Amino acid sequence: MIFNYHVPTKILFGPGKLKELAKETLPGKKALIVISAGGSMVRNGYLNRVVEILHSKSIEHVIFDKILPNPIKSHVMEGAVLAQKEDCDFVIGLGGGSSIDSAKSIAVMAKNPGDYWDYISGGTGKGMPVPNPALPIVAITTTAGTGTEADPWTVITKEETNEKIGFGNTYTFPVLSVVDPELMLTVPKHLTAYQGFDALFHAAEGYIANIATPISDAYALKSIELIAKYLPTCVKDGNHIEARTQVALANTLSGFVEATSSCTSEHSMEHALSAYYPDLPHGAGLIMLSEAYYTFFSSKVPKRFEAMAKAMGVDVDLLPQEERPMSFVKALVKLQKDCDVFNLKMSQYGIKKEEIPSLAESARQTMGGLFELDPYTLSLEETIEIMVNSYE
Amino acid sequence: MIFNYHVPTKILFGPGKLKELAKETLPGKKALIVISAGGSMVRNGYLNRVVEILHSKSIEHVIFDKILPNPIKSHVMEGAVLAQKEDCDFVIGLGGGSSIDSAKSIAVMAKNPGDYWDYISGGTGKGMPVPNPALPIVAITTTAGTGTEADPWTVITKEETNEKIGFGNTYTFPVLSVVDPELMLTVPKHLTAYQGFDALFHAAEGYIANIATPISDAYALKSIELIAKYLPTCVKDGNHIEARTQVALANTLSGFVEATSSCTSEHSMEHALSAYYPDLPHGAGLIMLSEAYYTFFSSKVPKRFEAMAKAMGVDVDLLPQEERPMSFVKALVKLQKDCDVFNLKMSQYGIKKEEIPSLAESARQTMGGLFELDPYTLSLEETIEIMVNSYE
Repeated sequence: MIFNYHVPTKILFGPGKLKELAKETLPGKKALIVISAGGSMVRNGYLNRVVEILHSKSIEHVIFDKILPNPIKSHVMEGAVLAQKEDCDFVIGLGGGSSIDSAKSIAVMAKNPGDYWDYISGGTGKGMPVPNPALPIVAITTTAGTGTEADPWTVITKEETNEKIGFGNTYTFPVLSVVDPELMLTVPKHLTAYQGFDALFHAAEGYIANIATPISDAYALKSIELIAKYLPTCVKDGNHIEARTQVALANTLSGFVEATSSCTSEHSMEHALSAYYPDLPHGAGLIMLSEAYYTFFSSKVPKRFEAMAKAMGVDVDLLPQEERPMSFVKALVKLQKDCDVFNLKMSQYGIKKEEIPSLAESARQTMGGLFELDPYTLSLEETIEIMVNSYE
Repeated sequence: MIFNYHVPTKILFGPGKLKELAKETLPGKKALIVISAGGSMVRNGYLNRVVEILHSKSIEHVIFDKILPNPIKSHVMEGAVLAQKEDCDFVIGLGGGSSIDSAKSIAVMAKNPGDYWDYISGGTGKGMPVPNPALPIVAITTTAGTGTEADPWTVITKEETNEKIGFGNTYTFPVLSVVDPELMLTVPKHLTAYQGFDALFHAAEGYIANIATPISDAYALKSIELIAKYLPTCVKDGNHIEARTQVALANTLSGFVEATSSCTSEHSMEHALSAYYPDLPHGAGLIMLSEAYYTFFSSKVPKRFEAMAKAMGVDVDLLPQEERPMSFVKALVKLQKDCDVFNLKMSQYGIKKEEIPSLAESARQTMGGLFELDPYTLSLEETIEIMVNSYE
């Protein structure tokens, strides 16, 4: 019961909230708008809506539209140079986690010298202290998955070394975030499921992490409950605004979990996979690891698994004591079936079985910190075992 | 499901946390330390500990030690003049709600022209916009009652007109708060109970308020649960650090509730009482109103009352449907008995029965806004009825 709590982001939440951005004081006079290379922000008209709001407030803007689904360091550096050259005094991340995370990292590098990897801890990162505050960040999320709009974290891949590592400090909390579920109606079925499970795992990992607090617990259990209840509807009927809203709330809550507790080694392992296989969506990677991962940990913190099963709607009191922890894993598998993402396997994404030991080592080298926050410390062998059990 | 969320305060929580203040970056070079006139901050050594931390960080300080249990406007103005004269660039509120609230209001007036009541909405307040941000505020709480360390609110009485009105804006959130239950071990039995019930009512009012959100709900139910479970132990054994810690957490959560939902008319009514009878402790005033108040509202939002009863440990599923809402009120009365604060009545504090109509009108005039956030809009007659039922 000893912890620090700090989630300074102001969040505008709910259907239709984007238009209220016009009423807010924005943190500058010229924005760098960071969006993906895919073009969906233009096609869906979201970019236009944001630009119009900026115009109405006499705020200038520059657009940086190169972000990839698994965002890379060279784009961070390129965006930061553009922000400097154009004298942008704040950054807007518009889109999914990749665009918002890139916006955060660009905001850091626009105000700091050297290379982004100088400030990264883990892998080949130099772990240097960051001398200056980042530019202020505004996040407008169009997906419900990463929770990045409500936490300080950004995850970027260094392409040359296949390292995908998280970073964050006080200044990488967005000062302002818009969570408008109306912007999420266009997310395709399979991505809705992947992203929803990403949010679920942020909550579940944060709940079993050894630094969980009563406050992060409250966020986590509520998030798990809402995802279990509403994600299948979102997947089946993308236009169901109430279900989208509930899952968006779950995702924001899972961001609070990440801000107040932490992810665990499940995320380290997945980052190793998608760093080497950038076509593997992060959420899909987590889903394929999850059954083996949570089965392994179910006996380590059984009470916590019972509570998570309960949050997923399992009537644990009706079960014999010894079956209760694993009832969370069963509910998880059922939810994957209900969302049409059951039985994803590493083998399906071209990963080779003999690579598993080096992928496990990579996970432990690049994001070893999260292994220390697990409720039980995995050995290299156990890490490999979880990956092998997720293979085919 | 449309709301704004913003709780920017950084909170250092847990037994022993005060010493970690030395590791934090404080928001200035010279602090005005605001404490009560009662002398307990000196006697208990808390002031000394804070001063030593400031010394160790080469931060100067000035002490303002006049705050009364029901803090008054003239002390706000006096403290603000002192802060200006001494060039203080931040304010530390050390103590209970009265000192921290005064620190907030002083921080506002140290940076703004005119009289504090120019900025107050309700009663004789002029409701003018506040031109400038307040000085940064650090809160070090030594009680578990007001939640002020985790919300933007400050409640000050204008002595001349017996108006006790709340105020707050983005800048009256503390930038940093210390919640160290070790500082709460010295709170006497009856104040422990009054303060604990104040926190309980912040949570309960915020839960039935018509602007409650799923996030404020999560805070509120957890807060209610912890107070029901641990407050009797705190009252019986003030040195029970675990119980003190749980109630301190409940109180911080109730501050989050106030920051994300709102108090309701129960607080308006109590403010009218203690504005005219400043010897009436705020928590005691709430306790005496509570049975009649919650009885009245139990039929208006029965589902919400059921959830609150459940949070208080009532096994509502065993009760017939029609008894469930009122089971919250029964649990409330039982908790009051367990905390030795049962059967407090307005008549015991010198309030005259014939004053009730004017007290009810005063509540509606000075803090009428909260009546609009009730789940059902009380008439003047119903307001009077609740007060009459609380009288003897």
